[in-house]
Amino acid sequence: MSSNNHYDVTTWPVGNPSEDVGEVINSIIADIKDRQTATDANNGGKPGAVIYIPPGDYRLRTQVLIDVSFLRIHGSGHGFTSSSIRFNVPEDEWPDLHELWPGGSRILVDLPPGGDGEESKGAAFYVERSGSPRISSVEFSNFCIDGLHFAPDGSGMHPENTYVNGKTGIYVANANDSFRVNGMGFVYLENALTIYNADALSVHDNFIAECGSCIELRGWGQASKITDNLVGAGPKGHSIYAENHGGLLITANNVFPRGASSVHLDGVTRSSVTNNRLHSFYPGMVVLAANSSENLVATNHFLRDHEPWTPFLGVDNGLDDLNGLLCVSGSNNSVIGNHFSEIIDSQSIRPAGATPVIIRLMAGVGNFVSNNHVVAMDVHATSSGSAFEAQVDALLTTEASDGLAVTAVMVDPASARNTILDSGSDAQVIADRAVNAFRATPAVGFQAAPEPLVVQ
Amino acid sequence: MSSNNHYDVTTWPVGNPSEDVGEVINSIIADIKDRQTATDANNGGKPGAVIYIPPGDYRLRTQVLIDVSFLRIHGSGHGFTSSSIRFNVPEDEWPDLHELWPGGSRILVDLPPGGDGEESKGAAFYVERSGSPRISSVEFSNFCIDGLHFAPDGSGMHPENTYVNGKTGIYVANANDSFRVNGMGFVYLENALTIYNADALSVHDNFIAECGSCIELRGWGQASKITDNLVGAGPKGHSIYAENHGGLLITANNVFPRGASSVHLDGVTRSSVTNNRLHSFYPGMVVLAANSSENLVATNHFLRDHEPWTPFLGVDNGLDDLNGLLCVSGSNNSVIGNHFSEIIDSQSIRPAGATPVIIRLMAGVGNFVSNNHVVAMDVHATSSGSAFEAQVDALLTTEASDGLAVTAVMVDPASARNTILDSGSDAQVIADRAVNAFRATPAVGFQAAPEPLVVQ
Amino acid sequence: MSSNNHYDVTTWPVGNPSEDVGEVINSIIADIKDRQTATDANNGGKPGAVIYIPPGDYRLRTQVLIDVSFLRIHGSGHGFTSSSIRFNVPEDEWPDLHELWPGGSRILVDLPPGGDGEESKGAAFYVERSGSPRISSVEFSNFCIDGLHFAPDGSGMHPENTYVNGKTGIYVANANDSFRVNGMGFVYLENALTIYNADALSVHDNFIAECGSCIELRGWGQASKITDNLVGAGPKGHSIYAENHGGLLITANNVFPRGASSVHLDGVTRSSVTNNRLHSFYPGMVVLAANSSENLVATNHFLRDHEPWTPFLGVDNGLDDLNGLLCVSGSNNSVIGNHFSEIIDSQSIRPAGATPVIIRLMAGVGNFVSNNHVVAMDVHATSSGSAFEAQVDALLTTEASDGLAVTAVMVDPASARNTILDSGSDAQVIADRAVNAFRATPAVGFQAAPEPLVVQ
Repeated sequence: MSSNNHYDVTTWPVGNPSEDVGEVINSIIADIKDRQTATDANNGGKPGAVIYIPPGDYRLRTQVLIDVSFLRIHGSGHGFTSSSIRFNVPEDEWPDLHELWPGGSRILVDLPPGGDGEESKGAAFYVERSGSPRISSVEFSNFCIDGLHFAPDGSGMHPENTYVNGKTGIYVANANDSFRVNGMGFVYLENALTIYNADALSVHDNFIAECGSCIELRGWGQASKITDNLVGAGPKGHSIYAENHGGLLITANNVFPRGASSVHLDGVTRSSVTNNRLHSFYPGMVVLAANSSENLVATNHFLRDHEPWTPFLGVDNGLDDLNGLLCVSGSNNSVIGNHFSEIIDSQSIRPAGATPVIIRLMAGVGNFVSNNHVVAMDVHATSSGSAFEAQVDALLTTEASDGLAVTAVMVDPASARNTILDSGSDAQVIADRAVNAFRATPAVGFQAAPEPLVVQ
Repeated sequence: MSSNNHYDVTTWPVGNPSEDVGEVINSIIADIKDRQTATDANNGGKPGAVIYIPPGDYRLRTQVLIDVSFLRIHGSGHGFTSSSIRFNVPEDEWPDLHELWPGGSRILVDLPPGGDGEESKGAAFYVERSGSPRISSVEFSNFCIDGLHFAPDGSGMHPENTYVNGKTGIYVANANDSFRVNGMGFVYLENALTIYNADALSVHDNFIAECGSCIELRGWGQASKITDNLVGAGPKGHSIYAENHGGLLITANNVFPRGASSVHLDGVTRSSVTNNRLHSFYPGMVVLAANSSENLVATNHFLRDHEPWTPFLGVDNGLDDLNGLLCVSGSNNSVIGNHFSEIIDSQSIRPAGATPVIIRLMAGVGNFVSNNHVVAMDVHATSSGSAFEAQVDALLTTEASDGLAVTAVMVDPASARNTILDSGSDAQVIADRAVNAFRATPAVGFQAAPEPLVVQ
Repeated sequence: MSSNNHYDVTTWPVGNPSEDVGEVINSIIADIKDRQTATDANNGGKPGAVIYIPPGDYRLRTQVLIDVSFLRIHGSGHGFTSSSIRFNVPEDEWPDLHELWPGGSRILVDLPPGGDGEESKGAAFYVERSGSPRISSVEFSNFCIDGLHFAPDGSGMHPENTYVNGKTGIYVANANDSFRVNGMGFVYLENALTIYNADALSVHDNFIAECGSCIELRGWGQASKITDNLVGAGPKGHSIYAENHGGLLITANNVFPRGASSVHLDGVTRSSVTNNRLHSFYPGMVVLAANSSENLVATNHFLRDHEPWTPFLGVDNGLDDLNGLLCVSGSNNSVIGNHFSEIIDSQSIRPAGATPVIIRLMAGVGNFVSNNHVVAMDVHATSSGSAFEAQVDALLTTEASDGLAVTAVMVDPASARNTILDSGSDAQVIADRAVNAFRATPAVGFQAAPEPLVVQ
């Protein structure tokens, strides 16, 4: 059936992949374990296997449990299409649509929801193995995990817009090594990807959108990378989240709205958030919380503007404009060479009349903030029935009627001994000059003192 | 024939893939549409398909028309080899060559050329679908599209060196979502990849060389990424081009000569050009035109030197050395932390005797130019019969007889309220100090004023 | 047998892939050459082939010789698991382990070792072809090359911890074009990947760990990229090495210990080392040697701390703390926007009592060092029996008892005309102010001179 450790869910004799691909995959994993029983002490015996999911729709009614290393599950299509846009089209227009649902090699997650603190129960793929060594080299590649529907959340929001359904795409419960998630599509899941205790994980080139939270590295971990993904979470969730990680590299991601944050780091140290394009409708785009320290936040493009799409008007993440687009509670971080565009309607600023903050140092010492460029404009927010066109219109509009006064950097009294260079004018930086080092961005007409004072 | 939506062009019963793989693929797409007719309202029905192109040569005499979502076309080899070098070897030496043509999973584009404004007619793969929703999740992966020959262009240039043949690799005519182009090879096409109205597009890890233009994002679009590609266009074309895009991330690309530009942005806003390696034989390497604003151009490596290869000596893009390697017509852009190497023969400067410009701000306001490092050398240009070895030699030569005086930053009168910091000495920056902010890079022997003036 | 140029090592009639997959692959390559004999002058004939290695263990007793272009060898799993951790577990605990060896599509390299200067003899995959054109488009993808064991090196180190065995994963001996190494796993090889004379090479998204040296670009070359890899070499080897290359892009890599260096460039010009996360247990993390010039080293995160794992305590690369974490012997390089964390026990500094150096300019002229942030802490080094947990603990610890005095930048007398801006205080930068330009990072309490002196 599988002499070469290559399985296909559509040809496996147990179960019906259209009705319950979870049962099929679990049966395949049982077969792998039955066949690869030998203690592999003589340089062989447990090489692993690959399970192929051809393009097609596969309902998953049984959670897949992965407890073997060296398992690759791959498909032939990430299959994203917007469910959010479709669910906001009247149903009587649906017969006119070319297609209604995501596609590709598509898993339809049809599990009962996991409750609070039981997210793992609602996971399509659940990875769990204790003992030694840590489970290694599990790979997910190029298929689609679709949560199908969101559910009422009591807020009065249209149920399909809540980002809530108790479903998770992939949930890794234990310490793991050298996992890969590449080329996947995730859509309409409350949590797309939740991984505990990762070492040398690679989350690369995925499409993760219209999910409550997208990429969450929980527990602790090290030396991983989140690179080159297209990501966008819901207003209560995380686009990219990590806690207690060291040596994490978050780069080359294009993070679009509407996550509560674009990148949220909690107790993360010696990590990099560099070279990402970040777009949000709320403050609190990049959050370094809980003493996140010695991180590098560099050459990112931050854009904060307004929600243009009618169904989500009025929704936000609860943070006001004093919070900052980048918020640091931690020490010895480097914030270098970032571009910030704050494009908002001054009438919508909260608290009313406040001066919005771009970079806020809330607590800690020794942060280095240098060469950041802040652009701020006061625009009249507009909305539109079409999410895509409205977003593009908003993105391309740079003709503001007025500039907008902002605080480029605000340093709270709980933060000290920071260095702030060339990141705002004297008026734009609120910091106790007695306990922080500061050099204002030169103003127009400024000229440095004449040059050489040769030291001899 | 395809119970699992997996097709192979070599086993499909209609057509002959060696003679016309276009007819074969169109027949497969017709089969997909015949079989996936159901309105998919009940959570299923149009999942898509994958078409495999094994290694081999496949002539394409019929344009492929793609009008279904969730279609992945993939091969097993990007198959690049230089046609440019071979075409510049005498034909009587060809029998001694190991191979003459590109390979891998190779499409030989044998279509009549599309004329001006009719590029789509010469496209091997033409994607077109109107109506709702936008066509989504079409993927091209790991095969080769070869345009075979260039054609006379009336200039007297050897026909195989013109970069003109009216052929396009992939042409996407309509608004589209979540497309992917990964691991492809494109060679000897006048236009490799032309995509209109892209949302969340990923162009990643491709090899696109010896094409007139390589990656062109036309119309308008948002939230896409062009990452980790090896790219090099012809002297009249674009290596990477985008118009009216917002939130575009162009990063980690290695762009080699000889495109008229390395990255050309036209009316592009809130986008990033970061962390690329860019090499050109002409000025005008990165162009922010038509009010391209609020973009971040950071930590790129720019190298401009001379064409070393005999067949192209004397060819250029028509721009003189006052144009700048980076040209900005737009507002509120950030230009931070880039390295520029200008390695040219002072005898070749145009206009003769001029001081070459590195960064030129032509129009707009509020640009922030900081921490850029300019290296300029006067070298005696040499040519060679071997493109590869000459390029390597030129690249590795850093021993210049003399330094070369350059204008690091030139600000035109039409541009104002810019901030220019640590990007050139006082003499190297031409800008009206009354309307721009300027701080010169300190000169040798400079020492800042003694430090603390404690504010209390 | 292979009408469509698609081969599978498990179904090929010659040889036994479990016993000697090298013999099988060589037989397949012979078949490719037998079948693709035609002079391909008529637009076809030598398209190449793909060889599939399903998940499984394949002993390799015969070196694979690749001398054809357009060959793709791919598997279904990079298969990494730590051999280092397992080999440091007592053997009587092995029966309790879930698995002992790496897996995936795994090549077990069982060749006699190549000696000094004969590394190619110990290579599992040896690519060699002279004549024209250069061999092109060979691709290695998604399989595992396992060297199985290290060998005694005479040092008294446990043989499995020596990183020595005379085995190489892939060795490319001749000039080559457009090669790809993607998604591979390499483990327990003295040299993972050694490539001479590369043009437009892509080494992308691989997992290369527990190898003596990982990625080595030798000879000379141009326009290549090393991107998005997880890499970690042994204490005598290179994680990423290049010599005489131009236009090389090294970005988005997560380089973990314990290589003698993280990135070592020897005579490399006009290249980029940007946006990487680098972690080492020794000084000399990034080395620009042998007149490496006009390179950009930007927005990298450097972490140097102590070896936490018992078996390697006391091992180092022989460099003392005056060497610098970044060492430059070359001219006109740009060092911009990097973060450096030096987290060491002051009792372990060598020479005892010395002030450790972070950036050292040893020779050359015209380097530009700007906006680098140095964090230094004196910690009490701890060791642990568990490499993973100890590393995570060390990474997450940011509470130091004391700050540590360091020299942020040291400029040797052999280096001059450098510019050093905002990269350390006056006391932290050792440079002859008469021959270098220097601006100290402002100290706490510093306030720039009052602003506008309008020039009119």
